[in-house]
Amino acid sequence: MDSISMLGHSSPSNKFSFLPNGLKSGSRDGSGNPTVGIIGSGDFSKSLCLRLLRSGFHVVVGSRTPKRAAESFPHVVDVTHHEDAVGKAGILFLAIRREHYSSLWDIKHVLVGKILVDVSNNRRLNQYPESNAEYLASLFPECIVVKGFNVISSWAMQSGPRDSSRQVYICSNSTEARQQLIEMARQLSFIPVDMGTLSSAREIENMPLHLFTAWKGPVLTAVALSIFFFAYTFTRDIIYPYMKTRQSFFYKIPLEIVNRTLPCVAMVLLALVYLAGQLAAGYQLFYGTRYRRFPPWLDGWLESRKQLGLLSFFYGCIHVLYSLCLPMRRSERYLLLNMAYQQVHANVENSWNDEEVWRVEMYVSFGIMALGLLSLLALTSIPSVHQALNWREFSFIQSTLGYIALLISTFHTLLFGWQRAFEKESYRFYLPPNFVLALILPITVITGKIILMLPCVSRKLKRIRRGIDSKPRQTNHERTAAHISPERVTIM
Amino acid sequence: MDSISMLGHSSPSNKFSFLPNGLKSGSRDGSGNPTVGIIGSGDFSKSLCLRLLRSGFHVVVGSRTPKRAAESFPHVVDVTHHEDAVGKAGILFLAIRREHYSSLWDIKHVLVGKILVDVSNNRRLNQYPESNAEYLASLFPECIVVKGFNVISSWAMQSGPRDSSRQVYICSNSTEARQQLIEMARQLSFIPVDMGTLSSAREIENMPLHLFTAWKGPVLTAVALSIFFFAYTFTRDIIYPYMKTRQSFFYKIPLEIVNRTLPCVAMVLLALVYLAGQLAAGYQLFYGTRYRRFPPWLDGWLESRKQLGLLSFFYGCIHVLYSLCLPMRRSERYLLLNMAYQQVHANVENSWNDEEVWRVEMYVSFGIMALGLLSLLALTSIPSVHQALNWREFSFIQSTLGYIALLISTFHTLLFGWQRAFEKESYRFYLPPNFVLALILPITVITGKIILMLPCVSRKLKRIRRGIDSKPRQTNHERTAAHISPERVTIM
Amino acid sequence: MDSISMLGHSSPSNKFSFLPNGLKSGSRDGSGNPTVGIIGSGDFSKSLCLRLLRSGFHVVVGSRTPKRAAESFPHVVDVTHHEDAVGKAGILFLAIRREHYSSLWDIKHVLVGKILVDVSNNRRLNQYPESNAEYLASLFPECIVVKGFNVISSWAMQSGPRDSSRQVYICSNSTEARQQLIEMARQLSFIPVDMGTLSSAREIENMPLHLFTAWKGPVLTAVALSIFFFAYTFTRDIIYPYMKTRQSFFYKIPLEIVNRTLPCVAMVLLALVYLAGQLAAGYQLFYGTRYRRFPPWLDGWLESRKQLGLLSFFYGCIHVLYSLCLPMRRSERYLLLNMAYQQVHANVENSWNDEEVWRVEMYVSFGIMALGLLSLLALTSIPSVHQALNWREFSFIQSTLGYIALLISTFHTLLFGWQRAFEKESYRFYLPPNFVLALILPITVITGKIILMLPCVSRKLKRIRRGIDSKPRQTNHERTAAHISPERVTIM
Repeated sequence: MDSISMLGHSSPSNKFSFLPNGLKSGSRDGSGNPTVGIIGSGDFSKSLCLRLLRSGFHVVVGSRTPKRAAESFPHVVDVTHHEDAVGKAGILFLAIRREHYSSLWDIKHVLVGKILVDVSNNRRLNQYPESNAEYLASLFPECIVVKGFNVISSWAMQSGPRDSSRQVYICSNSTEARQQLIEMARQLSFIPVDMGTLSSAREIENMPLHLFTAWKGPVLTAVALSIFFFAYTFTRDIIYPYMKTRQSFFYKIPLEIVNRTLPCVAMVLLALVYLAGQLAAGYQLFYGTRYRRFPPWLDGWLESRKQLGLLSFFYGCIHVLYSLCLPMRRSERYLLLNMAYQQVHANVENSWNDEEVWRVEMYVSFGIMALGLLSLLALTSIPSVHQALNWREFSFIQSTLGYIALLISTFHTLLFGWQRAFEKESYRFYLPPNFVLALILPITVITGKIILMLPCVSRKLKRIRRGIDSKPRQTNHERTAAHISPERVTIM
Repeated sequence: MDSISMLGHSSPSNKFSFLPNGLKSGSRDGSGNPTVGIIGSGDFSKSLCLRLLRSGFHVVVGSRTPKRAAESFPHVVDVTHHEDAVGKAGILFLAIRREHYSSLWDIKHVLVGKILVDVSNNRRLNQYPESNAEYLASLFPECIVVKGFNVISSWAMQSGPRDSSRQVYICSNSTEARQQLIEMARQLSFIPVDMGTLSSAREIENMPLHLFTAWKGPVLTAVALSIFFFAYTFTRDIIYPYMKTRQSFFYKIPLEIVNRTLPCVAMVLLALVYLAGQLAAGYQLFYGTRYRRFPPWLDGWLESRKQLGLLSFFYGCIHVLYSLCLPMRRSERYLLLNMAYQQVHANVENSWNDEEVWRVEMYVSFGIMALGLLSLLALTSIPSVHQALNWREFSFIQSTLGYIALLISTFHTLLFGWQRAFEKESYRFYLPPNFVLALILPITVITGKIILMLPCVSRKLKRIRRGIDSKPRQTNHERTAAHISPERVTIM
Repeated sequence: MDSISMLGHSSPSNKFSFLPNGLKSGSRDGSGNPTVGIIGSGDFSKSLCLRLLRSGFHVVVGSRTPKRAAESFPHVVDVTHHEDAVGKAGILFLAIRREHYSSLWDIKHVLVGKILVDVSNNRRLNQYPESNAEYLASLFPECIVVKGFNVISSWAMQSGPRDSSRQVYICSNSTEARQQLIEMARQLSFIPVDMGTLSSAREIENMPLHLFTAWKGPVLTAVALSIFFFAYTFTRDIIYPYMKTRQSFFYKIPLEIVNRTLPCVAMVLLALVYLAGQLAAGYQLFYGTRYRRFPPWLDGWLESRKQLGLLSFFYGCIHVLYSLCLPMRRSERYLLLNMAYQQVHANVENSWNDEEVWRVEMYVSFGIMALGLLSLLALTSIPSVHQALNWREFSFIQSTLGYIALLISTFHTLLFGWQRAFEKESYRFYLPPNFVLALILPITVITGKIILMLPCVSRKLKRIRRGIDSKPRQTNHERTAAHISPERVTIM
């Protein structure tokens, strides 16, 4: 079994050698270190070169102007022209722009069988009809194209991955080449993530371009709700008294009106988190199976529950901060002084109102409890805390505690509203108080939860979730025992 | 050296090939990709199959009803009957329930020498006398049994481990088979953790069933303390005035009584964190060695210090929130208005009380400082923050800053209590004020710390911790230089 | 190709075998498990031994007193004298102090060609002229010295790396030996980080000795600023009225004076974060290139921006806490009661002051917004949250949101100051109010940002940052497309 024959079929013994296949023939110098090629001599090329050198690789750089380029590389690096560089290495990193891929057409013959690593990024999402890597593969069908390392900036590449993101996404149609690059990524101290075939290249290329994609929907929802509730409260609490009695409460805008908007948005967002799961449960109950795909809008909604929940918590926190700042206001002081003046003049020795006292004590108390629970939910969303929990624990916090938080927040809001929902003067411009609107969705969700917890419904749902359809698809024997947690739906 | 002879003894060259031993003969197709078998065609089987395909493996699925099962698998998968599947692969994942393991008895002869991967979970902790994997090993003593992948739900298995927990625990009596599965786990983008021999299987099977096991003791302690302090404060502050003067202070229950309970519990919990370390130090001083095992209760206590500390911080935060909400109450407003009324009627121009002013300013100030320090302690308990610190930094925050926080909290409480501990009327029903009770443990711990910091004691302790016993167990030469940090005790 | 010839040149097939070169001849027992040697029988030796056994290695321990040492090791371990241990293993961990390295001189002949792993630590930073590993290498030039595993305490080594830091830093002049140890670290369930040649040994040895090195500068800056602003405010608000009118405001020290110091420090620290980036931008604009190194002080400043930002956030949070506690004070209550008394006596029915009301409402509102934004910045500094973001997202939060937070904080401060900066009586002792001082730097930075955003300046800067110098250094063709993010400067 000589080293040449090992190239033909992937035998066990060379499967995990980190040496790329292409390197096996003539790509090592006397000292036994593998050689890696880089086409292009720009910034990323320089950084990648330094990193490779540090991990013990030999590097050959292909440049259009080798003489000038050589100045900016360490002396141990072999800076030469493209064709020579390609000949000396089996793995070639392409550190040039997509527009210049075609310039390699001239040296097509030497590229045959080589592994080309496409590290390019685009400037916009889906800038070109096909991904850069797939374009490269179509240009050079006799090369093995691997996509990867594009999420690493040249700075992170040079300085080492200790204090920045370490994950590197790699895909290729060749399992062998993918494994080789994965091994190389590990040697360069990155954490490689295998992304399968080259069809994932577009996803990988889009990765560094995303700007909180997962947050777009939830943030837009929160902004829309904020505008709605702000306008609604503004109309009722500022416009109405001004039109009726010419009283100017405009000073309330920065704090009071905002602080009435925030809790309403927080309540609705929290209800939306759990509504998604309930709709999914309803969908499964309706079709009697868990194998039918959810419609895309529901899928998207289910996936953005974490973001909705965190936004709800953020709104809740800001609401707490606003509320705590209220006694700090000058307006509060003036109103209090005026009340003291009136109490003295009216000669009322004791202004105590037991109902009001109890209402506010309870209302504040429930608010703190809800915030305490929500903070636990938010805490377990920190990736490293999340990872320290097993699925049961995460589900307990997110589902059980989450529902309790929703319930307590609802009580908090009900205590705030008290009986004002039933008083005629609360209906300014015939509009109900804003807490009434904010309660619609939470109360719907709580009702929904109660229905789903009814024995008859919950039993049916459990059966569906374990994969037991009405039409038996598989024998009891073959169902797996405990991997039944349908995470996407469970938090409902 | 042919490929057959490599099977006999594990030679260097095949040690790290990811190909399982069993696969070496006849388990690869023409394209050189390894084949993995899955017994069972349920949900986990499907998800595992997709994941294996994505990472470039060939998959053969063994099913009782291959024809029907084939419908729900991709076309490239070879769905066949059990015996055929076993024959085609060297590594077999058993995606069937424990109850059905014995059904494989019929094909025992083809299983000889194969690697069986037990991925099963149970429904309860310690459901069976022995772990599923050990049961499997006892059924098929001629197979190599590996436990693993059970902590991964089918959803996480299918969707890839990017956004969920990535750790996979693997154990086996065969080091070789373990290494092969560890390598495979890495290829499937999980982070494998080597758990040693099959005797760890029970621990691994229990992992996904735990529900905050480490939190159970600390949470129960906190709840018990909460109930005690609540009842105590309720008796003194509500029952006593009601019985003596028929004054109804029941409105104080939701906020004031709770807010007097919280800081007491927080103080005691924080003291308990450091008491554990001091008891351990005392134990070591008493026996004059660090090599004697601590009694189990102390071991458990030492291990739950992090949880006790975090609970203390949580109680502290909620206490702050309650305190900040106090001025927001209606009762506060009414009392203030009444005081204004009385001041006017009594014609007191200036009600300033310098002692009271100073006491409260200092008391609030110390409270904020204690919270600030405790928040640093809590922050370094976030796993990824913890990992960014070295041992010296972590110990500085947790031990030095922690003791300072305890000291400041004690001052905070002393300032709150002021001289009320020495006034006769504070002893309602002959019970001392609750802050007196809450201070017992912290003051004990601070005294203990001072004793441990005395030069004579600390020098002796240092000697013990460096492994220098009274009876010399090893020559000076062989003591290791710097790995002396006995972490379990140091935070004291 | 026999196994002996494989030793001569590093062929693909043995490159990734985890077996160290030295082990290939005569270091395996019948069962095929590799043997690792440990010199020394202290605590670290014991822990390392247990860990190696668990991962399937055979261990031979070399001790001066093998008989006595054998008692404290498991029975499967071969505890023998030094020379025998060295002969049996190819990789040797040196678990002895640096002072005893020379004692191995006697067995120099058997050490030839072995891999010596230096796991030692020092007691102080840069304790010796050269690192322990380099000293070892100079003593035994015919051995291959690897530095590593020193950051792992014996406790973490023994109990497994699950709940403590998992990173292990490894360096060696031999790429081969380094790769072997890296592979071994991975088998022991650590995350190895390749640190290149042995010249990194000093850095690795210093690692466990650092005590918040990166925090030293920023913390000292914050402390200096705190002392300055505290003294300044104390002079103006306590000393001045005492000297002028003998009014004693000393009770204000613990809360009010501290609370006037905190926001000033927070403002200056936040401005310092962004000033560093602007100075770097100015430097690049001045020299017209990005390839010129920044002066060391600027480099250090740029690297400590994260710490400065977090300290600013911490000061901000404590400021909020202090502010929220203000209405809780007794002094506040007395002042309010006295004001009520005076209002009644002066017979003023309504004390409303519209300007004051608006000022405070706006001022509080801006403060909350700034804190909300800063909390997002702080959140993305948690390592695991940071890792979940790509570079664009991180830069958006840290740069765009950061500047907005700075702008809003500035408004917050301006609204606090109102027109007092222009009133003569604010200039006590001819000193301007402290908010005026605190605003100098933020306003400078905001002005700087506006200048940098001017189209002419920003275009020039963008060209420089993409590597386009005045003197063309490289052809357009070879510039890399998208790896242009000069992270160190961008956040400006």
